[in-house]
Amino acid sequence: MPAIPVFTHEAVLGAISPMEAIDRVRDGFVAYAGGEWDMPPKTYLEVPPNGDFRAMPARGAGLAILKWVTSFPRNPEAGLPVVMGMICVSSSSTGEPLALVDVRSVTALRTGAVAAVAAQELAREDARTVGIVGCGLHGAWAARCLAAAEYGPGVCFDPDPEAAGRLAGELGWEAGGREEALECDVVTCVTPGSSPVVDEPDPRSGLHLNMLGADGPGKAEATPAAVARCSLFCDEWEQASHGGELTGAVSAGLVRREQVRELGAVLTGAAPGRTDADEITLFDSTGLAIQDLALCVALLEAHRAGRVRAATVSL
Amino acid sequence: MPAIPVFTHEAVLGAISPMEAIDRVRDGFVAYAGGEWDMPPKTYLEVPPNGDFRAMPARGAGLAILKWVTSFPRNPEAGLPVVMGMICVSSSSTGEPLALVDVRSVTALRTGAVAAVAAQELAREDARTVGIVGCGLHGAWAARCLAAAEYGPGVCFDPDPEAAGRLAGELGWEAGGREEALECDVVTCVTPGSSPVVDEPDPRSGLHLNMLGADGPGKAEATPAAVARCSLFCDEWEQASHGGELTGAVSAGLVRREQVRELGAVLTGAAPGRTDADEITLFDSTGLAIQDLALCVALLEAHRAGRVRAATVSL
Repeated sequence: MPAIPVFTHEAVLGAISPMEAIDRVRDGFVAYAGGEWDMPPKTYLEVPPNGDFRAMPARGAGLAILKWVTSFPRNPEAGLPVVMGMICVSSSSTGEPLALVDVRSVTALRTGAVAAVAAQELAREDARTVGIVGCGLHGAWAARCLAAAEYGPGVCFDPDPEAAGRLAGELGWEAGGREEALECDVVTCVTPGSSPVVDEPDPRSGLHLNMLGADGPGKAEATPAAVARCSLFCDEWEQASHGGELTGAVSAGLVRREQVRELGAVLTGAAPGRTDADEITLFDSTGLAIQDLALCVALLEAHRAGRVRAATVSL
Repeated sequence: MPAIPVFTHEAVLGAISPMEAIDRVRDGFVAYAGGEWDMPPKTYLEVPPNGDFRAMPARGAGLAILKWVTSFPRNPEAGLPVVMGMICVSSSSTGEPLALVDVRSVTALRTGAVAAVAAQELAREDARTVGIVGCGLHGAWAARCLAAAEYGPGVCFDPDPEAAGRLAGELGWEAGGREEALECDVVTCVTPGSSPVVDEPDPRSGLHLNMLGADGPGKAEATPAAVARCSLFCDEWEQASHGGELTGAVSAGLVRREQVRELGAVLTGAAPGRTDADEITLFDSTGLAIQDLALCVALLEAHRAGRVRAATVSL
């Protein structure tokens, strides 16, 4: 087999700016909503009590990718990342492997990028300030992408004050409390989802909420009552209603399918976005393989154009 | 991320002999049947008209693997293999990637190995001669594994006489016609599954049939009537009844679930194998990720023991 390029963490982050990630992820949602791209459901391989592996395939733009990634929440206790694995990129026309890609950088960048896409689409026109609740790896990338989309300044909150301070320092924002973060125009929650950080009285009129932390069964960042107060959007209904932020409210009978709009449908104009400045919009991001695919498309283009270097591997 | 070894085609075939592959694949079926190993269903990503990609996860023996592999039947017309992709091997305890493995060699070896395991378990005690119907890559490896398990001599049939002659020459067997191959004790069919090679009058008393070619919807190597005459075994009921050799007979109402036994259950003694010397036994192999996992376990052991060399890759 011919040698294929291997894109490291540094190569991915060097090749794709937050601004480009936002545009690419937006394009991916549009292509998927329009039926040009295909995405079978994620498969979970449970490894109790460590967590799970996910196999996430998607196809589009001449590529077929398979993301193989862990969610091992206890790993940081052992000094290891929660997210580990790789992305295999193949040609969808010949089936040939084309590249191997670091999974952490792509996951962080595409997760951050969708927060910016959702804000651009669903937040009020005059929304500017950003609240970040949870300043880990994905919270930081959400903040960077929102800043690239010209949101800010922001308030960064984390139970670990050092993490909040570091992110605030990088972006020229402020560190603050949860309540201060929730007073901003665009609030992005990226917590482990083990206990709610948004309760019923919290979301105020006109707010846009990105909920990025709940990406599996049993996880939630807002109470079902708080969710039910909002106009609801998600990346994909099946995932959001079964292993996302909406799951609790759906199970409790507070939310029905027809109340929830998918981001892709909003982007293509098939469904309305925000309709009122006082509305509280909530976007539930569970994380889709089409987002990873969108960045792999960008990466291979950058490589063909000589804008990114890569070692190669032969199988 | 630490560098991980990359096992090429040559490394895999150099590290694992057909005899070891047979033992490992047998052990894998036993571990899966006993509940020690786990295997979520395959996911298919269709790419009409080229074929499909398959994402095949499995977990066991401290590893979690994900096989990402094509079945692109028209690829040989363009000088490319039907089967392309890679196997990602991770630690199931930490989630860390441990290795990257060539997919063609593992697929060929584990597909060949299961033919020998099924023959050892289901063919008559006095079975010796082997008929090979289809002498492509997987047919050749089935023949090599059957030879390693001390079956033979055999008759090799292929519409391409050169392919049949080459395999026969390698093993010291004969090339012959389809009917001659079907007169042997252990008949292994490995065709594209586009038209039946075993019809109702063919299978004779006492025969064991391995059906390896039908691995997706619409494929079959035997007519439903021929299948219904046999005592039926499969690698996994869900796959065999929905995208395997049994599918046609099940759809036609000729075969019910309770008539079909899984190989793992036979190996553990939970279900009977052949009960009569005159019985015609048919094993439907659709191909399972636990077979790939079994060989990855062997490969990593060989690497740790210094019996196989590998380049490394860093993500």
